[in-house]
Amino acid sequence: MAVSSSVNAARALVGLAVYDHGSSSNARPDRIALPAGGSALSSHATWSLTSSPCFQQCASRRRPKPCSSRRAAPARAAAVETLEAAATDALVEKSVNTIRFLAIDAVEKANSGHPGLPMGCAPMGHILYDEVMNYNPKNPYWFNRDRFVLSAGHGCMLQYALLHLAGYDSVKMEDLKQFRQWGSKTPGHPENFETPGIEVTTGPLGQGVANAVGLALAERHLAARFNKPDNEIVDHYTYVMLGDGCQMEGIANEACSLAGHWGLGKLIAFYDDNHISIDGDTEIAFTEDVIDRFEALGWHTIWVKNGNTGYDDIRAAIKEAKAVKDKPTLIKVTTTIGYGSPNKANTYSVHGSALGAKEVDATRQSLEWPYEPFYVPEDVKSHWSRHVPEGAALEAEWNARFVEYEEKYKEDAAELKAVISGELPAGWEKALPRYTPESPADATRNLSQQNLNALAKVLPGLLGGSADLASSNMTLLKMFGNFQKGTPEERNVRFGVREHGMGAICNGIALHSPGLLPYCATFFVFTDYMRAAMRISALSEAGVIYVMTHDSIGLGEDGPTHQPIEHLISFRAMPNILMLRPADGNETAGAYKVAVLNRKRPSVLALSRQKLPQLPGTSIEDVEKGGYTISDNSTGNKPDVILIGTGSELEIAAKAADELRKEGKTVRVVSLVCWELFDEQADEYKESVFPAAVTARISIEAGVTLGWEKYVGSKGKAIGIDRFGASAPAGRIYKEFGITAESIIAAAKSL
Amino acid sequence: MAVSSSVNAARALVGLAVYDHGSSSNARPDRIALPAGGSALSSHATWSLTSSPCFQQCASRRRPKPCSSRRAAPARAAAVETLEAAATDALVEKSVNTIRFLAIDAVEKANSGHPGLPMGCAPMGHILYDEVMNYNPKNPYWFNRDRFVLSAGHGCMLQYALLHLAGYDSVKMEDLKQFRQWGSKTPGHPENFETPGIEVTTGPLGQGVANAVGLALAERHLAARFNKPDNEIVDHYTYVMLGDGCQMEGIANEACSLAGHWGLGKLIAFYDDNHISIDGDTEIAFTEDVIDRFEALGWHTIWVKNGNTGYDDIRAAIKEAKAVKDKPTLIKVTTTIGYGSPNKANTYSVHGSALGAKEVDATRQSLEWPYEPFYVPEDVKSHWSRHVPEGAALEAEWNARFVEYEEKYKEDAAELKAVISGELPAGWEKALPRYTPESPADATRNLSQQNLNALAKVLPGLLGGSADLASSNMTLLKMFGNFQKGTPEERNVRFGVREHGMGAICNGIALHSPGLLPYCATFFVFTDYMRAAMRISALSEAGVIYVMTHDSIGLGEDGPTHQPIEHLISFRAMPNILMLRPADGNETAGAYKVAVLNRKRPSVLALSRQKLPQLPGTSIEDVEKGGYTISDNSTGNKPDVILIGTGSELEIAAKAADELRKEGKTVRVVSLVCWELFDEQADEYKESVFPAAVTARISIEAGVTLGWEKYVGSKGKAIGIDRFGASAPAGRIYKEFGITAESIIAAAKSL
Repeated sequence: MAVSSSVNAARALVGLAVYDHGSSSNARPDRIALPAGGSALSSHATWSLTSSPCFQQCASRRRPKPCSSRRAAPARAAAVETLEAAATDALVEKSVNTIRFLAIDAVEKANSGHPGLPMGCAPMGHILYDEVMNYNPKNPYWFNRDRFVLSAGHGCMLQYALLHLAGYDSVKMEDLKQFRQWGSKTPGHPENFETPGIEVTTGPLGQGVANAVGLALAERHLAARFNKPDNEIVDHYTYVMLGDGCQMEGIANEACSLAGHWGLGKLIAFYDDNHISIDGDTEIAFTEDVIDRFEALGWHTIWVKNGNTGYDDIRAAIKEAKAVKDKPTLIKVTTTIGYGSPNKANTYSVHGSALGAKEVDATRQSLEWPYEPFYVPEDVKSHWSRHVPEGAALEAEWNARFVEYEEKYKEDAAELKAVISGELPAGWEKALPRYTPESPADATRNLSQQNLNALAKVLPGLLGGSADLASSNMTLLKMFGNFQKGTPEERNVRFGVREHGMGAICNGIALHSPGLLPYCATFFVFTDYMRAAMRISALSEAGVIYVMTHDSIGLGEDGPTHQPIEHLISFRAMPNILMLRPADGNETAGAYKVAVLNRKRPSVLALSRQKLPQLPGTSIEDVEKGGYTISDNSTGNKPDVILIGTGSELEIAAKAADELRKEGKTVRVVSLVCWELFDEQADEYKESVFPAAVTARISIEAGVTLGWEKYVGSKGKAIGIDRFGASAPAGRIYKEFGITAESIIAAAKSL
Repeated sequence: MAVSSSVNAARALVGLAVYDHGSSSNARPDRIALPAGGSALSSHATWSLTSSPCFQQCASRRRPKPCSSRRAAPARAAAVETLEAAATDALVEKSVNTIRFLAIDAVEKANSGHPGLPMGCAPMGHILYDEVMNYNPKNPYWFNRDRFVLSAGHGCMLQYALLHLAGYDSVKMEDLKQFRQWGSKTPGHPENFETPGIEVTTGPLGQGVANAVGLALAERHLAARFNKPDNEIVDHYTYVMLGDGCQMEGIANEACSLAGHWGLGKLIAFYDDNHISIDGDTEIAFTEDVIDRFEALGWHTIWVKNGNTGYDDIRAAIKEAKAVKDKPTLIKVTTTIGYGSPNKANTYSVHGSALGAKEVDATRQSLEWPYEPFYVPEDVKSHWSRHVPEGAALEAEWNARFVEYEEKYKEDAAELKAVISGELPAGWEKALPRYTPESPADATRNLSQQNLNALAKVLPGLLGGSADLASSNMTLLKMFGNFQKGTPEERNVRFGVREHGMGAICNGIALHSPGLLPYCATFFVFTDYMRAAMRISALSEAGVIYVMTHDSIGLGEDGPTHQPIEHLISFRAMPNILMLRPADGNETAGAYKVAVLNRKRPSVLALSRQKLPQLPGTSIEDVEKGGYTISDNSTGNKPDVILIGTGSELEIAAKAADELRKEGKTVRVVSLVCWELFDEQADEYKESVFPAAVTARISIEAGVTLGWEKYVGSKGKAIGIDRFGASAPAGRIYKEFGITAESIIAAAKSL
């Protein structure tokens, strides 16, 4: 079992340098660097410029960040001062064109990609990364960094160019030249697990802006919990750039409605209003008034009408956005897609294809860019070079602040550290409830709530909620109130009926800090609404816990629209996600143990609406193996028949086994609670559960039989439901569909 | 293969009576009744009241429908006149309370269901079904009926009560008493395939309002194509009722943005603004300004502040909505959930549980309802009884209008008849293109476009489009323009980047008329965004054609966010949907043949971005069997090895076979283009493709291997991809992932 929680614990608290550019695709560290009691500041901190004579001097017109911010002004101002003379309008323009051409050249070399957005959004990108954002290029995981999300992920060359200029080791010139090639750090869409400096994985439209809401929620929540009047230890902005495509997606409206409701004032969204989507002018499908919609959603809105060259307008808008503290801000920035391309700008043809050699030449002439491909002018390079020392100084300053915090607020500091590092408290798993066969029968959704409430006491980063089904999903944490605008320190998140937004917001929370453990809930069938977000949990290694109740026809009367049938297999088929279907209390606790330990693999818990007995033979520990024998009256690993069940049908398998044993058969009952974990076991263990010599195998599960051939084999039998469900009391449906002990017994006799 | 197109052709044009209440769950007829040249009006038409002396007299204050409407006024006015005296305010109140108590009593008897919405929305329901809507209870499938969708489907007892009062045979008193029971016509959420009179299947929130947009689009499109200045043969409204839950769902915003863009003036939405969702007051998660949002989306909006008793306000709002012809209208109707329940009204506890005997009694007292359960007072019964003759008259009047239309506009009438009846033109399948191995290699997405354009010439009901990827999905119909506000007669629908809304809109189009064949398109991986709508296509028997291109790692550089891996199996697992993955031109044409013929089963076509050769041995006809041998050098049904491929990997299997045959092996190559169709074949045929005696079987598919055990068996081998994809040129990824002829050859040798 690939559990990462205890890995790297040793290096978790040793300073800045855990990020290792040279390692392979899983470069994201398991744990994030933290200053340990002030004693372990790394040598990087010597880059600090805090001793500069300009320490208290404020930023210029170029830097709309208010000087009053305790956060960053000192170190940044120092660096700025020396470069101020150089940061002329001409240099800014040159920097912006550098970004444009890095994007153009990389797409051209790959003969694949999306040059249009980087060309249009380069001014916004420049201002954010060069003038506004706080980050440390040499530690992309520094906790208090500003977060940036490119929701319009296809424009990733914009961000790669910016990361390169800013000095991130993850995007060296060679990486830019390897854009979209096998094994590169610069894949076709931004991937947090490939490229340090990328916060989340985007590309599927609308996801990124919802992730950003999650990142901003995390900041708001942690700030409310941990900040002190004399020490705002949690304090960063979340910036997101989204285009017309993101705006059209329903998930964006869901998440933005919540952001407005929550009043996430430190979320600032840039809407790249370029009037072009793949099918042409947005006039053909998108004529709503976006500004008015966002006003209706409770956002502050600003329109920058000249996003191509209106640098000061962009700066002023950011300044205004920051001044509005009780609402998120949408800055609509009207740009020209493919700005600078004489023949392709403002057309869809520049959206997703290389410009072509001829048009690249024409664009070079048009933007007066005489340089060879992939050229970064020296003055631009020099201008950007300050971000490495400046970033180190920012982090060092924050580290010093953390030391002060720790001295004064020991307990809070320990808790915050756990959130930042992802380190689980020693012995946390002892909080998991255990059950005996004498414990009362209960629905696994209720047992799930017992687990959540037990875990909330020991896991400082556990927070979450339901898509308006808290009282059905049983997800309320009783010791906490609701996360709301006025009570952001609380941990029960009320997502409303917005499953898709909920999933993506949880991805943002999970990827904000390794120690944040978001969970979210709805009826299992409605994973269909949020599947795109769940797939990104899996792909982006966001360890979200999906609490999915009402997991079968066992929900009864609500009928086929509410009864999952094909959902178990559809998640078993998805890479890097654990599909767990516990059968009782111990298995539910085991499922939570697995879910908490797997921080880079999301877990889906399928839980029953109906009561289930506590079965003899189940255990927390065995769940970690994915599949195991709960009872067996055979010897020599050679039962007459193996009955395999999951969740609510394990009880039925156990009953059938009792009957068959009465008739003298030797019967093994196996709980296959998590296929993925079982498949990872050693062959020897697997053989001990499913001996190759025993071909009489029967599975029972209230879902499709497809996929069960893997375990029952060509000679076995899968009992399941290969049709949609029905509206009736649950017991009746089970009987009508033949999900019964009788069906198992008949099958066993026929084998 | 369950093909329904040619069934019932004989009875398709014989009048009104094809709907048979007594038949089992699939009561929805394959074909809808139509008057045939005026000669086949059924005996039901004798109910017509058009000869009444009140023929030209208009409706009263109670009937805000404008008298100028040619559509319905005559027949309805006749019936109204006689009842006018009876329709006092007191009787309306009594009717409304009848609806409330039918809902309360049915939920109470089932001890399961949602009484709150029917209690709050009964006034709207009464006005719509008793005063506003045109329908014929004895022919729920009459083409020109007004459509009503209860998007808040959990409140279905409202609609069941209304259908019962209106005289629909599908909901008799006995059916109300069987609410939510096994085999009843009154399932827990509205199901069009169970209950004639229900237009679409709702329950999963947000779907219904998007379906309604599809229904309104269909009306708008058909009206634009077929109406004449002297004969508006297509002319109905679409009404939809949605609650706070629907409003929160992203799909609703997607669909409503499109409705505003398209200016669907005959779409009228009632937003049940009751401030309560399952988790409590909407204040906890839903504080946006809905009216302002809809204004931003281009809708006309009205607020009825007293939805509980403000009957005249509701009537006036509907009148105003009808007067606005260039915009859809949202009527926000503020109601009290559970209105009338003294202790539970305006709380979430009345949303989804029976009131309980005590509270039912209290509600009876509070609303002064002295009657026993399930009682319909005689005066209410008598008041509603006019809808049967009135409905028959409406249809008869329309039938007569159709006869006039047919006489004058023969060609249009024939085409419209095909749309209404679902009858496919004789020989339509001859339009499908055929290919030989000499035909040029091409991507199946391009071949798909050849099919779509060929079919558009022969199928009058074919229309559709893409979620902003028309030029990638290759879905444009070249002979038609864009369906837009000003050109609704055109057939290329531009959905924008709104996959979920697109799917649900297509469900609405498909369920509007049996002869409408909507198709919609995006990248295959983005079925994750629309899976909830696709599941409802499958469940509700909406024969939507899903054109899903870029179906594997073969799309290359866009990377893992864009590369489907688990998607084929996840649709193979879904009941009542066909997952087709054609390998070349003939198979693509075969897939379209299957998709067109399966009007009650949606089809998903997975199509390649990359070029594929035209393979020897493929054929249109064989695709209908789901799996078949494309080449074989063995005799006696006993090849050494069977290689199985689908789509773009069939070519690789064929190449490997060539190599293995050179080495003297006997090799069969099987195309398993559609598992569901293959599984429906006779055992004998299946044995002829996969002889039980041949266990050396190798599958190759660029997706997960899970599920392939079914065909390769315990001794075979599945070659696939059990991880996420990667960003690189396609050929490189295929090689790195081992999806190659070499892998097959190695596997064949190891077996």
